[in-house]
Amino acid sequence: MTNTNERAARPQRAAVVGCGVIGAAWASRLLLNGVDVAVSDPSPDAEQILLDVLDNATTAYDNLGLPTDAQGTYRMASSIADAVADAEFVQESVPERPDLKAAVHAEIEAAVGPDVIIGSSTSGIRPSDMQKGMTNPGRLVVGHPYNPVYLLPVVEVVGGEHTTPDIIERAKAIYSSIGMKAVHVRVEIDAFVGDRLLEAVWREALWLVNDGVATTQEIDDIMTHGFGLRWAQMGLFETYRVAGGTGGFRHFIEQFGPTLDWPWTKLMDTPEFTPELVDKLVEQSDAQSGMHTIRELERTRDQNLVGILKVLEANEWGAGTTIAAHRLNPPS
Amino acid sequence: MTNTNERAARPQRAAVVGCGVIGAAWASRLLLNGVDVAVSDPSPDAEQILLDVLDNATTAYDNLGLPTDAQGTYRMASSIADAVADAEFVQESVPERPDLKAAVHAEIEAAVGPDVIIGSSTSGIRPSDMQKGMTNPGRLVVGHPYNPVYLLPVVEVVGGEHTTPDIIERAKAIYSSIGMKAVHVRVEIDAFVGDRLLEAVWREALWLVNDGVATTQEIDDIMTHGFGLRWAQMGLFETYRVAGGTGGFRHFIEQFGPTLDWPWTKLMDTPEFTPELVDKLVEQSDAQSGMHTIRELERTRDQNLVGILKVLEANEWGAGTTIAAHRLNPPS
Repeated sequence: MTNTNERAARPQRAAVVGCGVIGAAWASRLLLNGVDVAVSDPSPDAEQILLDVLDNATTAYDNLGLPTDAQGTYRMASSIADAVADAEFVQESVPERPDLKAAVHAEIEAAVGPDVIIGSSTSGIRPSDMQKGMTNPGRLVVGHPYNPVYLLPVVEVVGGEHTTPDIIERAKAIYSSIGMKAVHVRVEIDAFVGDRLLEAVWREALWLVNDGVATTQEIDDIMTHGFGLRWAQMGLFETYRVAGGTGGFRHFIEQFGPTLDWPWTKLMDTPEFTPELVDKLVEQSDAQSGMHTIRELERTRDQNLVGILKVLEANEWGAGTTIAAHRLNPPS
Repeated sequence: MTNTNERAARPQRAAVVGCGVIGAAWASRLLLNGVDVAVSDPSPDAEQILLDVLDNATTAYDNLGLPTDAQGTYRMASSIADAVADAEFVQESVPERPDLKAAVHAEIEAAVGPDVIIGSSTSGIRPSDMQKGMTNPGRLVVGHPYNPVYLLPVVEVVGGEHTTPDIIERAKAIYSSIGMKAVHVRVEIDAFVGDRLLEAVWREALWLVNDGVATTQEIDDIMTHGFGLRWAQMGLFETYRVAGGTGGFRHFIEQFGPTLDWPWTKLMDTPEFTPELVDKLVEQSDAQSGMHTIRELERTRDQNLVGILKVLEANEWGAGTTIAAHRLNPPS
């Protein structure tokens, strides 16, 4: 993706439909990249959520050395139709209810321009299911981000049965134009790729708390002092390649593959969210993090992420290469 | 842990039994913390592995600003008995075969001093199983590290049915004295805590490759540009607490808990390592990382980890707090 192409793909006006934490972070990423954003959300809190998230995002971009002085402007639209009418790109981030998604997509379609791509932030609903009943289903793609959306660069792009390769390429180009690494997930599965992995960890972690093996604090400590540090810069497969030594990945599999048959996982079923388990989780989480407000935790998180991204950029590695590429393409 | 206590717990002489990548990294961490180390390993390559890893570790400590000029000395011992005879602490890192572990532990016990703690690096064998047949079983604990052991500070400490709380405290103090965050896993389960989580991710990732949903590169990109960055600084539970917003962890569970019942995971069974799957993994890993040697990848990894740890230390957060505490306690 050259600088010129990336800039050409960047919309001048976008609509954000649904402005909770995720939608507000999409709006912030778009605004900081010079895109004007119309926001639609029925909640009276939506504008304040946007302003709070934009405040965090602007601080983060400042600290990352990305420009914050050529922001787009936002407006709170009176309806979905009002938001999307002149948008060149729409990102939908309403709650994860298939019926609600369908109703919102119908409203968007009724008012939006014919060639506009609609990206859905859904974590798990298949695009083909969302495309059913749409007038122009091919233009709806999943664009699944990771919070904080204004800092974490990855977005999973997933098309449905009606989606053409051209739409996927256009969607990837739009996401790239606002500084993201767009990974096309070619096979449509529930929860896509990242959330499959997260779900597996979440279930296993719940068992560990449920069974009294470890507290939320201890599990988090083991992650943040161990494999979490690894995965900020090399993923599972590259890490294991290194572990295999000069014998390469085949050697690694030959050495460790058989232990897969050991009965280690408890993931055959799901722990029930009994009141006891919920209380335990809440109490342990309060003990672990209750001394910080959510706002403080967000700022600490962003400060850490900015520092980590700078390190990776200086080392010309991983997510740092995405930041470096994006620097060549400031908002104008 | 005060400075004085930490220093008092640090052994002057340790034995490392088994000197592959993990054993060599234990030896390096001990040496860089001023501990003399006797190494036992029947392989003719063992000393070269140690020197290679120590070279990486010394560079990493230099870059981290930790002292490297008061190192202990190492010697290659002629036998396990020779290595452990005057050791104040033994770390065992031989291959993961229960019969081999048992034979090695018997050899260690026959020659080591009566009160010396033996830590085993096993990733999955229960300490109670390893304690069977030992003369003084209570002193064997699991001390499970994460590679690179000289940089990643976490160690899971697990006792068996014969282990007293006093032994656990002594083991934790020894690990802390060489700069580690020792997390006591109170309930003995196969694979402990971290490897439970890793195993869940590994299995799910294998399915994704097996089913052609994503390549090793794509899975790693989604990790390193997404949740891997998060987990370097906040674990699963703290991240989700923030995602829950001001409603706290109870709100998060109420919002997302029910989706756990969605049929997202494929972890009900294990993918078979067919030749086709192995070939696919090897080809994709080569395409992803084959342009770098393992040594280059190790150095890149260490450079990234050093930078990330410095960021976290500057922000007084996560693994950075462990590094900061350890700076107060240099080798003398």
